[in-house]
Order: sequence, then C-alpha cells, then structure tokens
Amino acid sequence: MIIVLKPNITKKAEKEVLSEIRKLGYKPHVMRGVARTVIGAIGDEQTHHTLESLMILEQVESVTPIQKRHKLVSREAHPTDSTITLDNGTVIGGKEIVIMAGPCSVESESQLMTCAESVAASGAKVLRGGAYKPRTSPYEFQGLGEKGLKLLAKARKATGLPVITELLSENQATMVADYADILQIGTRNAQNFQLLIAAAKTGRPVLLKRGLSMRFKEWLLAGEYILANENANLMFCERGIRTFEDYTRNTLDLSAIPIMKQESHCPFVIDPSQGCGRADLVVSMCKGSVAMGADALLVEVHPNPAEAWSDGAQQITLEGFTKLMEDLKPFASAAGRSL
Amino acid sequence: MIIVLKPNITKKAEKEVLSEIRKLGYKPHVMRGVARTVIGAIGDEQTHHTLESLMILEQVESVTPIQKRHKLVSREAHPTDSTITLDNGTVIGGKEIVIMAGPCSVESESQLMTCAESVAASGAKVLRGGAYKPRTSPYEFQGLGEKGLKLLAKARKATGLPVITELLSENQATMVADYADILQIGTRNAQNFQLLIAAAKTGRPVLLKRGLSMRFKEWLLAGEYILANENANLMFCERGIRTFEDYTRNTLDLSAIPIMKQESHCPFVIDPSQGCGRADLVVSMCKGSVAMGADALLVEVHPNPAEAWSDGAQQITLEGFTKLMEDLKPFASAAGRSL
Amino acid sequence: MIIVLKPNITKKAEKEVLSEIRKLGYKPHVMRGVARTVIGAIGDEQTHHTLESLMILEQVESVTPIQKRHKLVSREAHPTDSTITLDNGTVIGGKEIVIMAGPCSVESESQLMTCAESVAASGAKVLRGGAYKPRTSPYEFQGLGEKGLKLLAKARKATGLPVITELLSENQATMVADYADILQIGTRNAQNFQLLIAAAKTGRPVLLKRGLSMRFKEWLLAGEYILANENANLMFCERGIRTFEDYTRNTLDLSAIPIMKQESHCPFVIDPSQGCGRADLVVSMCKGSVAMGADALLVEVHPNPAEAWSDGAQQITLEGFTKLMEDLKPFASAAGRSL
Amino acid sequence: MIIVLKPNITKKAEKEVLSEIRKLGYKPHVMRGVARTVIGAIGDEQTHHTLESLMILEQVESVTPIQKRHKLVSREAHPTDSTITLDNGTVIGGKEIVIMAGPCSVESESQLMTCAESVAASGAKVLRGGAYKPRTSPYEFQGLGEKGLKLLAKARKATGLPVITELLSENQATMVADYADILQIGTRNAQNFQLLIAAAKTGRPVLLKRGLSMRFKEWLLAGEYILANENANLMFCERGIRTFEDYTRNTLDLSAIPIMKQESHCPFVIDPSQGCGRADLVVSMCKGSVAMGADALLVEVHPNPAEAWSDGAQQITLEGFTKLMEDLKPFASAAGRSL
Repeated sequence: MIIVLKPNITKKAEKEVLSEIRKLGYKPHVMRGVARTVIGAIGDEQTHHTLESLMILEQVESVTPIQKRHKLVSREAHPTDSTITLDNGTVIGGKEIVIMAGPCSVESESQLMTCAESVAASGAKVLRGGAYKPRTSPYEFQGLGEKGLKLLAKARKATGLPVITELLSENQATMVADYADILQIGTRNAQNFQLLIAAAKTGRPVLLKRGLSMRFKEWLLAGEYILANENANLMFCERGIRTFEDYTRNTLDLSAIPIMKQESHCPFVIDPSQGCGRADLVVSMCKGSVAMGADALLVEVHPNPAEAWSDGAQQITLEGFTKLMEDLKPFASAAGRSL
Repeated sequence: MIIVLKPNITKKAEKEVLSEIRKLGYKPHVMRGVARTVIGAIGDEQTHHTLESLMILEQVESVTPIQKRHKLVSREAHPTDSTITLDNGTVIGGKEIVIMAGPCSVESESQLMTCAESVAASGAKVLRGGAYKPRTSPYEFQGLGEKGLKLLAKARKATGLPVITELLSENQATMVADYADILQIGTRNAQNFQLLIAAAKTGRPVLLKRGLSMRFKEWLLAGEYILANENANLMFCERGIRTFEDYTRNTLDLSAIPIMKQESHCPFVIDPSQGCGRADLVVSMCKGSVAMGADALLVEVHPNPAEAWSDGAQQITLEGFTKLMEDLKPFASAAGRSL
Repeated sequence: MIIVLKPNITKKAEKEVLSEIRKLGYKPHVMRGVARTVIGAIGDEQTHHTLESLMILEQVESVTPIQKRHKLVSREAHPTDSTITLDNGTVIGGKEIVIMAGPCSVESESQLMTCAESVAASGAKVLRGGAYKPRTSPYEFQGLGEKGLKLLAKARKATGLPVITELLSENQATMVADYADILQIGTRNAQNFQLLIAAAKTGRPVLLKRGLSMRFKEWLLAGEYILANENANLMFCERGIRTFEDYTRNTLDLSAIPIMKQESHCPFVIDPSQGCGRADLVVSMCKGSVAMGADALLVEVHPNPAEAWSDGAQQITLEGFTKLMEDLKPFASAAGRSL
Repeated sequence: MIIVLKPNITKKAEKEVLSEIRKLGYKPHVMRGVARTVIGAIGDEQTHHTLESLMILEQVESVTPIQKRHKLVSREAHPTDSTITLDNGTVIGGKEIVIMAGPCSVESESQLMTCAESVAASGAKVLRGGAYKPRTSPYEFQGLGEKGLKLLAKARKATGLPVITELLSENQATMVADYADILQIGTRNAQNFQLLIAAAKTGRPVLLKRGLSMRFKEWLLAGEYILANENANLMFCERGIRTFEDYTRNTLDLSAIPIMKQESHCPFVIDPSQGCGRADLVVSMCKGSVAMGADALLVEVHPNPAEAWSDGAQQITLEGFTKLMEDLKPFASAAGRSL
C-alpha cells in the first residue's frame, strides 16, 4: 500500500497516520519527497486488512494498493498454460483451437438437431445452446428450461459433441451439471459470487464470461472464486464490453487475449457473436482472435437466423459457419495452431 | 419497429423483407424517402416477437425498436407517485425524505448498536447494515451472515428503526426476509433475474440498485421483474455508474432522479456513499439529491471509519451524520419536503 | 513514482532498475515486502522526467505516479476561492450565483434581441450565444460567424449584459475577443492546447468546458495551460460526459462540483442544457447544481425551441427561463447564496 | 426521421406536430400502432433541418434520425476501396500492408537516424516521428518543433522513407505540409474541425485518428470534413478508445477494422502503440490487425525506450521491430496480403 500525505501537515498528523498503519498490521516506511511525504506500508495485502479506509483521515491525500490480488489463477502460481480435458478427450488450451458452435437458444428438436449435425460436420468440437436464458425483460422468451437440456443431451448422443450451456440459478447447479459438459456463467452473473461458488462445486468445467464493465483485475478475482472452491477447470471468455459506441451492441475487446494469457494460465475463449451483436462482423473477429492466440471460439449458429427466438441479428447460418471454418484455417496455421 | 432498407435494392429484395415482417406477425407500412425506403412495422412489440433478427438480411440497413418495453413500473401504468409503507408506519415516496443510515457491514454488536442508536437520535428512519457482502475477492471479509442479521434485529428492537439489508442468494431469500424490512439487491446482482424473482416472492419491499453499467431502460425492465412477480413495493436506488473517471470509485448520476421519476412511479433513492466511494463528497451529493427530488437517501455511517472492515473510505462518522442531517434541512424545505 | 518489481527477479535485474532510476534523475528508495520489492523514486515529478518508460523493462511490473501534476489551478497554490470580475462589475465566484443565458446559436437580430431582453428581465447576468458552431457534420449550420458576433455586441449594448461566446479557431482569437467578454472553449477543443494558449493570450476570461471523456486530472492540466500563459481568469464548466447511457445525450456529472471546488480555486460553472440534451431535465439539474455549490449556470434559452437552428431539444423557452429563476431562489438561499 | 407520439394525446396535439413537421420542410406519414402513433417524416435529412428540436413539444416521446449522414466517405459513394499513392510510389490501401514506424517524438539527430535506418532495413515503408507533441500538461516536453521537422526531412533523404508527422495548429498547416508526406491529426483534435479543414487544404494525405470517445458515425463525419474540402486522400486510424479499463492506457478497438471498411472506402490504419500504451501487447495487436484487414500499421519504435522523452512504455526496440516484421509475414500471407 502506498499512502501519500497532504503537503504541509504537522508532525502530529503524520504520527497519527503511522500509528494507524501499525494498528492495522502494516509496517510503515516513510519517504520524504520534494513536495510530499509518501509512506510505503509493508504487509501482505492478500491476507491483511486493506488500508484504503485511511482515506478517511484528513491528512491523507491518496491510498494506492500496489499488489495484485489474484493468486490461484495467476501465471505466478502456474507458469505454464493449463488445459481442460472434456469427457470425450477434447482438450481446451492445447494446440488445437476448439470451436464451440450452436444456436443462441434451444428452440425445438429439429432446430437443434439440424444445427448440431451441421456444425459437427463442419468441424465444431463442442455444441452450444441456451436452455435457460437471462432476458432483459420478463416478457421475453426465457428458454425451454429442462426440456432444452434434454434436447442438448440428445444432440450430444447423436453427434458426439460435448455440450456447453448457461447456468442461471444456484438452485439448478446440480441439475444443469447433470446434462452439461461445461457450465457457462453469463455476463450479467459474472460477479454473482454465490452462483460462481455453486458452479465450481459441481466439478464441471466452468466458462466465465466477462461482465459488461468488468476490469481485468476484477475478472481474474471472479475466476479466483472458482479455483478457490477447488475446481481447477476454469476458462475465461471475452464477449464484448459496454462502451459509448452504439454501432455494435458491445465492443469486443480483443486485447483481452494477450492480457489474460499474460496474467493467467487458464484457457481463453472469444465469443464474437455476443461480442458484436452483428453476424456480419463474426468472420473478421474470429480471424483476429485466432491470430492473437485465443484457445477457443464460441460462435452462435442458427438454421434460420431471421426467425430465431433470441438474438437473431448475431447468429450466422449453417453455410456461413462451414465457410468460417474454411476461412480460419490459414490463420490457425499462421499461429502455429490447428483447428 | 422501424426497418431501414439499404439504398438501390431490387423490388424482389424489398418484397422478401415485407413477407418476413408479415410472417413474424407485424403489419408493414412502407415509406419511400429521398434516399432510402423505410418500413414501419406495426405490432405490439411487448407481446410479439422482436424484428431485430431482420438485421441478418442483406438488404436491411438497420432495425430500430421505438416502443418502451416497461409496463408495470411506468408512469403510464400508474400516473401518480406510488409509496411504500413499512411496518412501523414509515412511508417512502411521500412528503418526508427518508434517511436510511448505518454501517457498510455489521461487524460486531457494539459497533452496530452504537451506530444504530446514534443515527436514530440524529433522525434516520431506517437502519442499514450488510450481513452478507458481495466481495470482489474471495479472500475478503464476506460478512457475518445470519449472526449479522440477528444483530440487526436486535438493533431494530432497541431503536425501533426498520432494517434494510442486502440479499445475495436465492437460497437465502426467505431467511433474510424473516429479519429484514427491506431487501436490497446490489449492483452486481441488478440483472440476476433469478434473485430478483426470489426477492419479489418474499413480499418484502425491494430496493433495486442500478447495475454498474445499466441503462435506464434496462433498469426499468429489471424493476419490471419485481412488479411482474406480484410485489408492488419496489424502489430504485442510484449508486454510481462506471465511467472512465478514476478520481471517484463510481460516477454518481444524479440525472437519474428526474429521469426515473419521469419514467416510473416508484420511489427513488440515492446512495451517495457507494456513489462516490469518498466520504468527503457525501454531504454535497446529499444536498443535490434532496434538491432534485430524491425520496430517500442511503448513507453509510461508521463509528470509526478508518478501521472499518469494508469500504472505510466512503463511510462518514457519527458526528458527520448528525451534521449532515442539519445541513440538509434547508434544502428539504426548499424542495417542499420534510426530513 | 512507485515502481513495483516482478517477484523472484535476480539481484542483477534489480540493480539495473535502480541504476536506470538514478540515470533519469531520481533517488530510489527500496522497500522489501512479503511478496514483492517496491521502489519509491523521489524526485520532483513536475520538473523531472516521468519514469513510466521503465515499464519497458522486463523486471518491472508497474509504475505509478503519485504526485498531482497541476500547480497553478490547485487549491494548494491558492487556498481561497478566486473570482473573476467582468467589465460591468459582475463577479463570478462570489456570493451571487451568476446565470448566463441565451440561445444555442445566434440566428437573427430579432431572435437574439427578443431572447436577450427577456433573459435580462428575468435576472440573467450574462448573455450566451454561439456565432461559430462546431458541428459534427460539415453539412450542418456552422453559425453566422462575425455577423453573429456583431449581433451579440448589439444585444450587449441594448441590455447591458456581458457576452460569452465560443472560440473555435486560433486564427480568430483576437477578433472574437474584441466582441466577447468571456471566451468559451468547447468540449471538442478541451485538449486543443494551441487554442487554449491563443485564448489565454487574449487576456479575456476563459470558460473551459470539460472534454467528452476527460478525467478531472486532465481537465485541471488543461486549465493549467490558461494560467501558465498568464491569464488568471479561468473558470471550469461541466457540460456532461460521455457514458454508455443513451437516454440523454450526455451524463451531466454533478459530482464535478465538489471535486473541482476541492481541487481548484477557480470558479465552477454547470451547463445543464448540453449536459443532458433535454429541456425537460434542465430545471432539476439547475436545482441540484445550486444546492451543490456551482458558482454559475450556463442555460440555453430560445424564443421558439422547436424551430431552433441547432440543438432545439435542449433549449428552454423564455417563459420557462423566467420560471426557472423563480424556482431556483429557495435553493440559492438554502445554499447561502443569492441569485 | 421517426417521431413517436406519447400515448393518449388529443387530435389537436397530434395536428400541431404534423403542422410543425410540414413547416420544417418534411412530409409526415402517420402510422397508428397498438399503443402509440408513429410519424415517419420524409425529407432529405442531409440538406434539410433536423427534426430533433420537436422533442421540445410535450406530446412527442422521441425523435429518431434514421439516415446515415456521411456521404463522400461512404461505400455508397465509392463502392471500391480507395487508395493513396505517396510521392515515392508507396500505395496505402492496396495489396501490400504498409508499415509506418519510428519514434514517438523526434528527440535528436542520432536517435532519429538510428531509428529510421533500422526500421527501413526491417521493411517499414513510412517513417513516423512527432515534432509537435500535444501534451496533457504544459510542463511536459512539447516536441522539437520545426527543428524536428528538418530532422525528419533529413531522415527521409537518407532512407527514402516518406514521412508522417502530427499537425497541431491551423497556423502551421502549410509549414508542416512542406516537410511531411502525410499529416496526422491526433485523437485530441479529431473534432477540431478548423484544423481538419486546414489540413485538407494543404492537399497532403491526411491520417485521421479516432477521438478518445468518438462513435463511428462521428468519425465518419469528421472524415467528411476532409473530403468535403476537396482532399480525397484520407485514411482513418484507430488508436484506442477510452473505457473503464485501467490495465491499458486505452482499449484498442479492432472491431473498427471490419466496421470502417464496411462503411467507408478509405484506407484503414491501426496504431497498436497508442492503442494499448504497453509495448508488451504490440505484437499481438499487430497480428490481429493484419488478420482482420488493416491496410497499414503505425508502430512506435525507439532505440532505447526506457529513456524516451515521451511515451516510453509503449515503444518497442529496434530488434523488437525487426522480429515483429518477421512474425507478421505468415498472417499477411493468410490474409492474402503482402508486407
């Protein structure tokens, strides 16, 4: 912790700060500068109390934490890349870039089966599909629920593709985990810590999306909730952040790839569909993601996007997906990866 | 819905759009402009399917929803201000501006009792205090849990102040509602719809904080989840949004007061403590809030902020709170309200 | 400057950093913590070179400046409030809250004269009006130019109101200063440092609007360009920042009032018209501004807003302005100010 | 323009709106929906007055422009990619991806010459270097000025590389254009329209950086100022936008590549150095940019970044640049481009 004192304060006021620092369990280290006095307070910020409360003292100008707070997800804790192996042997975080594809929502057996078989044939390795949908309005389609999960299980059986689907409720964690190979935590729940704990405890791999306005250090700490609850199979997924821009639904932040790979050992996934909210940008965003080192892509594909029950504007067609897989090959190869 | 077609498309391409609009249950209304053709699609957007999926068609340039989607929380549904009456007769949303005060976290019996008695004496009408705390890091203090709730109940008994406390988990809704007079939904859970539904179903009044980067229309729809689940006692609480600014923890958006009062009949609350994250700004933000029409304030007060277990930098002292109450009186009076 | 080293680096790597710090003119001060080594580098950051370039060294984890960089505009430099006295004796920054009012753009003699006489009668103390307009599109009305300035001078003569108008171009600084009592620097030019210098050099008081996404510390430094160019008559004006919200054109950040009054001695102004872009929010924003300590308000008023040549949606009517002045009185009085 | 009326208004109130629309030169087109009446107002929004001022009428709920306002920079105006040919024959916007490299600031002859010769040898095709620097603080290094321009001219002579440098002041447009092959307009001046006009009028190619919080439609309109002033040689350059994230100085928005290539025919450039403010992210951002279709890259390179006079943290070394050029080759090739 770095505590900067206001200029021209009395000796007594300075002593009060030093004594409060010691009381809170830190060892103060005074540096007198040209204009201000700065105190380095040594202590392990990860276990001791923070000193930000000292801001309340009139003689304190600023308190700045300097230590990173994430531990288990950090590169320091685990210098090499970690990988996640699914039941059918698919490895996320290895040499192969894993493509996860499927509809935004599971709508019907025929919609899901058509889609699953087509994306499998084109080279997808995981099937995505929402059975429980978090919707901005209570009057919108909320997903087929457990019926949707059963359809996903059926599609897995037919195609061999492991299934990723969103978990919305602590109460449903065990039940959803019975059907799914990967549990997805959505952007609106990225700091719903009770849900994170419930997901971790199922033992299933967890894909943690970035919150709408989540800083990297907050995201890493949300991930920490998974690993600290004894589930090592965490992957992070960038899906667009909220900015002032209104051309796209979100601004897909591809700088997240090198940053999160630098800070954490966990596999990193890009969702270009939610990321932009526009199907016409998906191919380009995927090319960039592959070039920059993403370990997996999560792509929304629908047999008839114009009539989709949710988020039609961002889903690509079956043919579009087949073409995308072809288009990405040279970039995967340039990145020293396979598809 | 307004659908704008790209310029210079064929008659056939236009017909395809019209036929898709009809298929999705809307009646198209074609307007030919100087440069572009625009289609107004008439249908009740609140019950029918959205047309945003038409963006997927190559000949479509943009799709713009024009209708407001919130119903029950809207002024149209309920033109006069609604009020919430607590068990002890305190009315939120009436002539009196209700001050809710207390510590960020319940830390101990003596801390809570000291604080509760002091804020009651100074004129607070509701006691706040966190028993379950959503913390960015799993290694931070997570609240005293049910023990904290019991202390809050004890403080209520001693002071007569109704209690507001945060609900974090669907599983705890009934239990927390047993102790609390108002359930607070925090910013990180503002779109945790399962939690909103669980809170609504307890029948307790709900205070819904704005999400970190929530637009007003999204906030209104989140509130809609409460009213649509048959709980009429909803109040909204602005607590700062996330912007690029780093001088304060959040940017407290006071324009929320006239906007939300204009759009909704529900009482409106300001939290200046979370709103800025700095105790030295609380008095000024409260003055503005009172002048602009807030129905209640939610203020963090701690007997010794420098040693608080959470968010010390934003809590004011007991003396500070007493002075605040005095300072606000002329502004309440200027606004035609009492304190 | 605080330099944090990566964990587990060699003695040699540490020495390299220390030697580079000394080479750049700072004195390093090593603190060994539990997990990391932290170096406080003492030197006057305001005259010496920054050390942020040390981020390039592999063994460095972070570099954090800790000193405030603004000098002349700071409270430290000038602990009491500074005031600006206009030619006709109007004082900005004193006990009286100064209301500046008038149309967004000067459109015609009759429009301006009607407006000027009406706002003067209602109690405005300064006349605003744009003669040069910065427009997002080159095809929009760009202002009447010097003809507009002449009309403003005529209105000043008729009403006695000093005039504030925007300066857009370095080349026009002297000419605009010949007509205007206060030069306004708009949000898009808030970091157009050449324009700031040119404005400062005219000797006229300068009103510096906040840039669309300007942090307080950047704004203070932009203001520093005025004072450092020997013009002491600077006032800052908040006019809304850009956020994710789309209900209003901008988010008017009223927390700017206590923050900027705390950091700087310069008078502080609120522009509620640009701030929200909606006339229906102006009254409420003005009440909050007055309660929170603004020294002046800059309000757009138009005889017929629906037909205004620019920004009609945010201008209030003549009657609306008269009523606003009445509405604000009790709040000014509660704040210990006059109107 | 789409005007939505409030529900339940009188016939008379509706007529008033219609008559005002006609008065402003538009033809109203009424659509009666289930809940609201919507008016499509037909007229050429590009030459007529906007109707946003109708928001002032009490019976109007919203006014939404639906037409794109950029003309000359749009794909509609010029469906094929436009290219810019520099004096030495280098083509920007063609098959070759053009790499522009050099120091942030010109500091000395030896610094510039060392850098220019090295980047030329590694394959750069344009030399960058700042002679006039816009600095947040008036106390920071402001560039060598004309002396810097002379050094750039000398470096051009020695290496054959055309020069790009920033233009800060209208007054210097002709002078800077005498030395430079491309004029750069920086992010803080992206809506300094007088500077844009002055730059356009020199006849030199213009590189227009995106403002810190500029929406795509505003950026396109700023570009329109160049083309409307009879200078066809415009390129856009993304350099990071301002968001809530604080890990990087800016958030480099790579989605700008497909979006701006879709909306405009002008060549598109990425600046990964300013974009992130961190040298350790430059390589990855360049790979993504190349994969996604950028026409050129603007990379900051310095012989000794740790001692750079400005922005050292984001400049890569000479060796780093040589390696970058090698690393990008397979990606350029995958994208069907050369380097």
